[in-house]
Amino acid sequence: MKHEIDLAKYKIRTDLMSEVLDQENPLEGCTREKTEENGITIETISLSFEAASKIGKKPGFYQTLYFSDITDEKNYQTLLETFQKYFQKFLDQEEIGEKASCLVVGLGNRKATPDALGPLTVDHVIVTRHLFTIGLDVDPKYRSVSSFAPGVFGTTGIETKEVLEGIIEKVKPDFMIVIDALAASSIERVNHTIQLTNTGIHPGSGIGNSRAELSFETLQVPVYAIGVPTVVDAVTIVSNTFQYMVKHFSYEKENHKKPSFKLQTFGPRDYQKQTDQLSQEEKEKMMGLLGTLTEEETKKFISEVLTPIGYNLMVTPKEIDFVIEKLSCLLSTVLNKVLHHL
Amino acid sequence: MKHEIDLAKYKIRTDLMSEVLDQENPLEGCTREKTEENGITIETISLSFEAASKIGKKPGFYQTLYFSDITDEKNYQTLLETFQKYFQKFLDQEEIGEKASCLVVGLGNRKATPDALGPLTVDHVIVTRHLFTIGLDVDPKYRSVSSFAPGVFGTTGIETKEVLEGIIEKVKPDFMIVIDALAASSIERVNHTIQLTNTGIHPGSGIGNSRAELSFETLQVPVYAIGVPTVVDAVTIVSNTFQYMVKHFSYEKENHKKPSFKLQTFGPRDYQKQTDQLSQEEKEKMMGLLGTLTEEETKKFISEVLTPIGYNLMVTPKEIDFVIEKLSCLLSTVLNKVLHHL
Amino acid sequence: MKHEIDLAKYKIRTDLMSEVLDQENPLEGCTREKTEENGITIETISLSFEAASKIGKKPGFYQTLYFSDITDEKNYQTLLETFQKYFQKFLDQEEIGEKASCLVVGLGNRKATPDALGPLTVDHVIVTRHLFTIGLDVDPKYRSVSSFAPGVFGTTGIETKEVLEGIIEKVKPDFMIVIDALAASSIERVNHTIQLTNTGIHPGSGIGNSRAELSFETLQVPVYAIGVPTVVDAVTIVSNTFQYMVKHFSYEKENHKKPSFKLQTFGPRDYQKQTDQLSQEEKEKMMGLLGTLTEEETKKFISEVLTPIGYNLMVTPKEIDFVIEKLSCLLSTVLNKVLHHL
Amino acid sequence: MKHEIDLAKYKIRTDLMSEVLDQENPLEGCTREKTEENGITIETISLSFEAASKIGKKPGFYQTLYFSDITDEKNYQTLLETFQKYFQKFLDQEEIGEKASCLVVGLGNRKATPDALGPLTVDHVIVTRHLFTIGLDVDPKYRSVSSFAPGVFGTTGIETKEVLEGIIEKVKPDFMIVIDALAASSIERVNHTIQLTNTGIHPGSGIGNSRAELSFETLQVPVYAIGVPTVVDAVTIVSNTFQYMVKHFSYEKENHKKPSFKLQTFGPRDYQKQTDQLSQEEKEKMMGLLGTLTEEETKKFISEVLTPIGYNLMVTPKEIDFVIEKLSCLLSTVLNKVLHHL
Repeated sequence: MKHEIDLAKYKIRTDLMSEVLDQENPLEGCTREKTEENGITIETISLSFEAASKIGKKPGFYQTLYFSDITDEKNYQTLLETFQKYFQKFLDQEEIGEKASCLVVGLGNRKATPDALGPLTVDHVIVTRHLFTIGLDVDPKYRSVSSFAPGVFGTTGIETKEVLEGIIEKVKPDFMIVIDALAASSIERVNHTIQLTNTGIHPGSGIGNSRAELSFETLQVPVYAIGVPTVVDAVTIVSNTFQYMVKHFSYEKENHKKPSFKLQTFGPRDYQKQTDQLSQEEKEKMMGLLGTLTEEETKKFISEVLTPIGYNLMVTPKEIDFVIEKLSCLLSTVLNKVLHHL
Repeated sequence: MKHEIDLAKYKIRTDLMSEVLDQENPLEGCTREKTEENGITIETISLSFEAASKIGKKPGFYQTLYFSDITDEKNYQTLLETFQKYFQKFLDQEEIGEKASCLVVGLGNRKATPDALGPLTVDHVIVTRHLFTIGLDVDPKYRSVSSFAPGVFGTTGIETKEVLEGIIEKVKPDFMIVIDALAASSIERVNHTIQLTNTGIHPGSGIGNSRAELSFETLQVPVYAIGVPTVVDAVTIVSNTFQYMVKHFSYEKENHKKPSFKLQTFGPRDYQKQTDQLSQEEKEKMMGLLGTLTEEETKKFISEVLTPIGYNLMVTPKEIDFVIEKLSCLLSTVLNKVLHHL
Repeated sequence: MKHEIDLAKYKIRTDLMSEVLDQENPLEGCTREKTEENGITIETISLSFEAASKIGKKPGFYQTLYFSDITDEKNYQTLLETFQKYFQKFLDQEEIGEKASCLVVGLGNRKATPDALGPLTVDHVIVTRHLFTIGLDVDPKYRSVSSFAPGVFGTTGIETKEVLEGIIEKVKPDFMIVIDALAASSIERVNHTIQLTNTGIHPGSGIGNSRAELSFETLQVPVYAIGVPTVVDAVTIVSNTFQYMVKHFSYEKENHKKPSFKLQTFGPRDYQKQTDQLSQEEKEKMMGLLGTLTEEETKKFISEVLTPIGYNLMVTPKEIDFVIEKLSCLLSTVLNKVLHHL
Repeated sequence: MKHEIDLAKYKIRTDLMSEVLDQENPLEGCTREKTEENGITIETISLSFEAASKIGKKPGFYQTLYFSDITDEKNYQTLLETFQKYFQKFLDQEEIGEKASCLVVGLGNRKATPDALGPLTVDHVIVTRHLFTIGLDVDPKYRSVSSFAPGVFGTTGIETKEVLEGIIEKVKPDFMIVIDALAASSIERVNHTIQLTNTGIHPGSGIGNSRAELSFETLQVPVYAIGVPTVVDAVTIVSNTFQYMVKHFSYEKENHKKPSFKLQTFGPRDYQKQTDQLSQEEKEKMMGLLGTLTEEETKKFISEVLTPIGYNLMVTPKEIDFVIEKLSCLLSTVLNKVLHHL
């Protein structure tokens, strides 16, 4: 069966660099470091020019925060403080001056909840550029900030890059921050990850609205991107489940003889650290030829099954309205605190 | 492996009677008829008292319409006309008089898009009861209609049935129409099905907000329910994919020797009518022990894998905002036309 | 001219007891006290049974806070703290126990911005009744709170009182808090006043949606009402302007000979404390017969002019969306802090 | 008193050319024609270069439709058909070719209801430019249309003209249509008037957000503007009332001896055609010095009273949400029908 699968068709849909690298062999010129802080995992990735070109990505710096459900008030507060700290550090490291002017751009479609993160965030960014341009004496804690939500190609008929080029020419910001909803290639990342990068936003596997790259290379202004995955596709859900099946069997294989196993009938299991304990033969017995595929091959195969019949949906958790409200509030609060020293 | 699976844990999450019956053996006292009209499939189910009690459901009449994407204007119009016709027939069959007073209830949470179908529909229902109660001379094409969106338990702290009992006592409607968003147990039903029934709304596998039954038995008023599935759970997506895999292999097995097969590289495939062509041996080779499970066992197994790690999400297509807008517009238009002869 | 005016037609549209009393002669059995705190004026009114029946109002306790624009963050914070303190005092004075269960009701139409204060406030009230009813062990700082937004007569066809009677019978709250948008009879009150009272909500001059009284007398539960005027009618705007004209002339008469007067060309004038300095003759010279009317007569006359031609609009400031957002946030925050000791 | 009024301070706030001209003496080079169609009055104004420069306005063509309440379904339909006809005629007259590409711009703040007309209208405009740019074979009934809502200076920090210049450079439309909410200088115009002009949008008395002119002169593209007044200021309401007072007294003077007058106690009066029947002496007796002022002087005086005390609010009718919903639906429907021949 395996040889019948056309492995070229499916493109893994993810905008998270950590997920891209998870699917690659270790790469020279790529460093990855993880730390944990207040229950939030922070991964820092640095990609050299050579490493990046090998995998068709852009070189630069990527920082990813993995966090728990932020509709919980405590988690929200912890993430707020942690992200503020790392975002401040990020701007310092990029040597952004205290008075450098900033254009904040909210990408996405305001009318589609899982895609509305960008526009809803900029709605609450404190803008000040107009105060500077009309010559007011502005409190020194504020820098010049403007903001913009360019809409999406499908509802304006205008490519986002075209809109931004026009605006940049007029506003001449020293740097840009672009907020966008992303696609993830694993269920557990959705609504639980923020990615911060100095490489801009790239034509995307992403949420399916392919668009021209927004970056220093294309816009001649430093473009810092903040993205949160809010959708996955059905292929991802199925493929993730296969991996969990392997972990599930591995867990049972390791533990079923322990006396405690029979007692442990409730409670959540943590498969995060569960390693694969199955022999190839066991996998084949349990999952057939499916058990012999790599993760990438599995996704390509599932895609081959679902795509022609129109069921490779992009989906979002049903609570998305509440999550987007919280996320946009968190991002705008952090932007206001860091950009304006409030 | 099979014997290790605890098949009792997972409850198929569906509010569609047709899906419930698809999972059962043919049932005495249950009739199912399908017709097609303008590309819309209409299934009519009648369940006797005996048949219903065997499967733990309520006896009565269920009518289900399966339709294509209604964000397409043509499909929208066709569905509008077809549903109007069947809804009119339904009320006639239930012997609802032209002047019988109606209370329309929109269940669900207005602030969660996939759950907002009910409240958004009642927002556009033309209410007239207040004109009758204050003694106005109302145009005879209108009947007395009132409407209500009781909110959800989690945001009001009050059980929906309690709210409705109070209101019914005051309003004393001759019959009620209840609109609700449902859960489906197959991807292709989501946003593509309307179910109409004279049995009310039942404590639900449904969208996960379990609630007390709303029916003639509990409220002493005829309760007609209109439901549209807007969410599925991850288990459903994975399980559906397994079935598509079998159909995919069956299709390839049947067709790969036909000269046309190699040429047919593009275009959507229709697996609707593809029958299972695989021997048990082939299934095991391809999908291992997974290939030996029934659909129900598959779902229970996937649930066993996903639930303890918290990934059995309820999800909704990312375009849900646009779909809900269209659906609520369609339902309120049909209600106004049929209830008021507009 | 004066004798030609039919003074009976116009009913002053105000829901503020302080404004009602301002139009009356001093009343035996009515005490009014004003204090100021952090720039907020707090007026406390007590109305005896006798005094109330003389003016066709309900006896009881009214507390009114007058504050500055709360889209300003500092004013918002000050009002939040001050209202929290007075609301806590109010409940103590009413001898509401720490564990008494509360039903919070948001009156008004969610889809009409100036009337949406009630529904938007209850959206953010923390409800807990369902936790108590399902028998959870709830943190002792929470009391049992449920909430409800019954909609308006015109969009549900059901009288608010009917809805609430039904719900009260089921929920059996120890007391109720009702939030509503009001009408004011002076421009400066709009969006700048909160009225708190133990007398409930009365069939209203108010915002024009007359409705049955919601009070202890009609519902057999203590009903505490929190109201904020968000609209005025055109008559009010014109009549207020006449009064400002008198103050304007008085100010000029008093000040025009002072050397500073000519210099004082910019800046806002404060007419709050400007007393009437014009003789009757001067008023007639300046404003004709209009100058001879009392405030009430003036309103009646303007109403006589505007009403038959359909121009006695209820209006709201164009910034109403921002104000309502802030007000609903403030009220729900205070309710959560005081009801739950958060 | 009169000589004490500084007549220079108040600027009449209107964006309607018909209202500007109503305040002027007849002007050489200005033609005004009125017709009526289905209860809608259509005024056509042509302003020569000379006439325009005399009054500080732009020469060109203005067409104004006056209509009744469009929350009434019949009025809505009539206006839809009438406006469609006149808008088609307007584009023909401007010699806009069937395939000329169009950029539709929705000005105003999406989050302030009375200012949201532009953004809400463009939300429903059918855009096609992206189909042409990616080289699709587009149905010939469609032209290339793009759309954009640039937001407002105060929330983006970027001047609208700057945004549009950038976009025009990229999109290079053959013509632009700009939708905006306006201010009126009479109560009866609010929500009851559409103004269509080939002169663009001008730095505005308007809704108070002054902005740079958007016109052929400033953008080098023909700019057609569609505006609807949705707000008035308090000065307008008071001043209009004074005029109605004169009409009221005139009506009573003319009619009070007729036997029918005493019987006519109900029903609306129509003052539209009521001419001024009062002598100067009578006016002074009734309204004092106020009776001696022209309309413009009255407004300036009222402004002098209200502005320094901060009560010259811009207001909007309390039903504004429903009206804006209907208006944006009407405008987008007409744009789609006329631009795309749907």
